[in-house]
Amino acid sequence: MGQVIATYQVYDRAGQFTKKAEGIALGLTVGTWTDLPDLEKEQLKKHKGRVIEIRELPEDEQVNQFFGERRKKAEIKIAYPSANFSVDFPAILTTVFGKLSLDGEIKLLDLEFSPDLLEYFPGPKFGIEGIRKKLGVYDRPLLMSIFKSVLGRDLSYFAEQLRAQALGGVDLVKDDEILFDNPMTPFTSRILVAKEVLQKTEEETGEKTLYAVNLTGPTFELLEKAKQAVELGADAILFNVFAYGLDVLQALAEDPEISVPILAHPAVSGALTSSRLYGIHHALLLGKFLRLAGADLVLFPSPYGSVALEKETALAIGKELTRPQDGIKRAFPVPSAGIHPGLVPKLIEDFGVDSVINAGGGIHGHPDGTIAGGKAFRQVIDSVLNRESIEETAAKHKELDRALALWGGK
Amino acid sequence: MGQVIATYQVYDRAGQFTKKAEGIALGLTVGTWTDLPDLEKEQLKKHKGRVIEIRELPEDEQVNQFFGERRKKAEIKIAYPSANFSVDFPAILTTVFGKLSLDGEIKLLDLEFSPDLLEYFPGPKFGIEGIRKKLGVYDRPLLMSIFKSVLGRDLSYFAEQLRAQALGGVDLVKDDEILFDNPMTPFTSRILVAKEVLQKTEEETGEKTLYAVNLTGPTFELLEKAKQAVELGADAILFNVFAYGLDVLQALAEDPEISVPILAHPAVSGALTSSRLYGIHHALLLGKFLRLAGADLVLFPSPYGSVALEKETALAIGKELTRPQDGIKRAFPVPSAGIHPGLVPKLIEDFGVDSVINAGGGIHGHPDGTIAGGKAFRQVIDSVLNRESIEETAAKHKELDRALALWGGK
Ligand SMILES: [Mg+2]
Ligand SMILES: [Mg+2]
Repeated sequence: MGQVIATYQVYDRAGQFTKKAEGIALGLTVGTWTDLPDLEKEQLKKHKGRVIEIRELPEDEQVNQFFGERRKKAEIKIAYPSANFSVDFPAILTTVFGKLSLDGEIKLLDLEFSPDLLEYFPGPKFGIEGIRKKLGVYDRPLLMSIFKSVLGRDLSYFAEQLRAQALGGVDLVKDDEILFDNPMTPFTSRILVAKEVLQKTEEETGEKTLYAVNLTGPTFELLEKAKQAVELGADAILFNVFAYGLDVLQALAEDPEISVPILAHPAVSGALTSSRLYGIHHALLLGKFLRLAGADLVLFPSPYGSVALEKETALAIGKELTRPQDGIKRAFPVPSAGIHPGLVPKLIEDFGVDSVINAGGGIHGHPDGTIAGGKAFRQVIDSVLNRESIEETAAKHKELDRALALWGGK
Repeated sequence: MGQVIATYQVYDRAGQFTKKAEGIALGLTVGTWTDLPDLEKEQLKKHKGRVIEIRELPEDEQVNQFFGERRKKAEIKIAYPSANFSVDFPAILTTVFGKLSLDGEIKLLDLEFSPDLLEYFPGPKFGIEGIRKKLGVYDRPLLMSIFKSVLGRDLSYFAEQLRAQALGGVDLVKDDEILFDNPMTPFTSRILVAKEVLQKTEEETGEKTLYAVNLTGPTFELLEKAKQAVELGADAILFNVFAYGLDVLQALAEDPEISVPILAHPAVSGALTSSRLYGIHHALLLGKFLRLAGADLVLFPSPYGSVALEKETALAIGKELTRPQDGIKRAFPVPSAGIHPGLVPKLIEDFGVDSVINAGGGIHGHPDGTIAGGKAFRQVIDSVLNRESIEETAAKHKELDRALALWGGK
């Protein structure tokens, strides 16, 4: 019989974790147990939650300080039978972390799906291999960049910026997540203009660049809008999944007519993941859930920039997106924020060749402009893969040399 | 020109709040400003975010303890022009708390909409007055109850429980939020059975009871499913809005064919609201946002039970739901968890006559059963409104007397 096993981090004054865990396992499934007549026990058996593990952990001194009292800490695992829910994110989240999310210091760390349940989730439509095939790039991390402040600018500005990024050798260019449908650069026009610009740059350079258009607006218009985007020739979709819902991402991923990769943006997710005491663990929400729901690429804060995640957390997200899993394609990790060419050796060491290097200021802010900014990244990527020293490469390429001089890394 | 003004609680080591606020106001709108040529400034002026207020607050010693260092604290207000976003929850949340939610210790406390923007939000379709009219009850708090563990039970159990609750004088009976579509008590059967049961009890008692069916399943099936529910004669819809998205609630509320009240459940919302440092303030998320999105009734943790909110927080939610607001109906506050008859005087004092008293165990756990449990609540509600002493009323009514003996409150 199918089940999900949830792992929670809990704190308790008295450290009565067995009682707490039993309370959750029953309270979120059949309600009561010991007082039930045998006949009802038989009837309800397949719905009863079970405590799988209780693991006491060392107290967290910082947390004790925060509460001004000692709190015991533990990780508990509870199994919820799939007989209790329809296999979709809203039902599963409501079951394992619905009312429970309101119940004091409790954080959802992980959710393990029995194999039969995984079949209800699409996973990425393209995944790492599919996107590599689209680009014809198989042997290096991809390079992504973001427009610089398109808000309030017109289509010619948009076209010019896109062209510069493509000429710099960028593989994927994404809209800013705060660019919505607007009269100056409407959704459909951006797609059409991008198509024209990128066909031209491909003819010039022989390299493909994909443009990810921000899919926005009312939820119930998104499927049609995404299909329209595909018909117009959109290469990929950027989606603020946490401003909508995981199930909306899943619907986009499941629709066969929406035949382009989806790039999931972590906007709003910090409200769910940032606390050490509450909410949902980064690796679960941005890693496991987004991959299952069908994101082909996932942006998350890098461990290096100003808006930084702890390194171990960022690595855990990357691992969830890329670990081998039967029937579910791998998704590209896109560790973002504060990325400049000098960080590329570190990025490849940490996230591997199957990752996307994503820069904004680190490309547009190059002393010689956006094209040079893109080239510097491509140069340093090749350098790392060819096991050249970064100094050697910089000596041969002035774009990289100038970037390293500005941002460091030599 | 329209705008939203966001209020954030921020912490900063150095206390450089002016710099931080300016960084947000520009970073989340036009990107840069001072270095722009005058012509571009003119072009971008209407898109530029503005710092409205910076208010330094006393340091929070608990927070300092937690971080092991002193952090200055402040509230800052930033105005975002509506020229920057489409007027829907996903776009607005992404603008004001998208990337920013990932930026360290920052909490979204409030969002003020300029009056022109409020017109884009439906608010409750029925609201307090509409629900009172449906029930023909104008002068007292409503009484709501929840089924006891329907999971794994059949329709006859469901029907019997519903009948007992209605005979006890309950105005609204809601599904458990963890009851999804399932073979034993399917969605459509629950609606049909409830209709039959409640027509009969109305004939017997002369009092109406509304049944709120849990609307669940894939997002893109919800509108059709809700319409089907209405066609079958559903009285109201229960909705786990935070497992889906605020915009999905809004779509349900805006659809004229979904002509029944919507009861919003706070499942999963604790992941967003519980932290003092991160996420979104309770009163904003469960109060202002749910009312604007169209919830007619809003469940939230009461300040009395085991899963408790601080009283000031619970009151703030209630206030957001009920304060007079042009063109937006008032929604019923439903403070929940741990409610028994002895708490009713306190509930009415705190949340007023325009609130819903909601009990589970406090009704089903009555020594003489569910019917007596409902009656005890109605007795104590009348007692408070008639300014009788609770002892006097209990002397006249054995149901209340027995409830108070069990749970206290005399
Ligand atoms: Mg951005
Ligand atoms: Mg419940």
